[in-house]
Amino acid sequence: MKARVTVTLKTGVLDPQGKAIEGALGSLGVAGLASVRQGKVFDIEIADGLGKAEAEAALKDAAEKLLANTVVENYRIEIGG
Amino acid sequence: MKARVTVTLKTGVLDPQGKAIEGALGSLGVAGLASVRQGKVFDIEIADGLGKAEAEAALKDAAEKLLANTVVENYRIEIGG
Repeated sequence: MKARVTVTLKTGVLDPQGKAIEGALGSLGVAGLASVRQGKVFDIEIADGLGKAEAEAALKDAAEKLLANTVVENYRIEIGG
Repeated sequence: MKARVTVTLKTGVLDPQGKAIEGALGSLGVAGLASVRQGKVFDIEIADGLGKAEAEAALKDAAEKLLANTVVENYRIEIGG
């Protein structure tokens, strides 16, 4: 079973990396993209024998403890097939 | 109009950052997660007045030129409402 945890900055939190990408896109002549915000994605393989509820609990635990800084970031967990 | 570009490492490319996360999850006592691979996500606001086809072309351009290193990374473009 596979899962994906997406971590993005909360609204209102400054994203200098995103701003730098916006600037670079302008320099490269890519037009039409108004604003960029960067986040992280984690593709996680769930161990065999774990149920969906247990997997979700483990992923929530991982996100809260390690993957996201919940002061400034949101996370979203998707569990696939 | 909003879009999301997700950049992930190609299969077979080593991901030391993902391995470090696996190790850290073990140390933190989070069990049941077998393997972790890290990627990047870019939430992009498309300029008003751009059609979906033009937006897709601009995003592809941005991904190829700047957001992804296509030698070792795959990218996926999703255009939302």
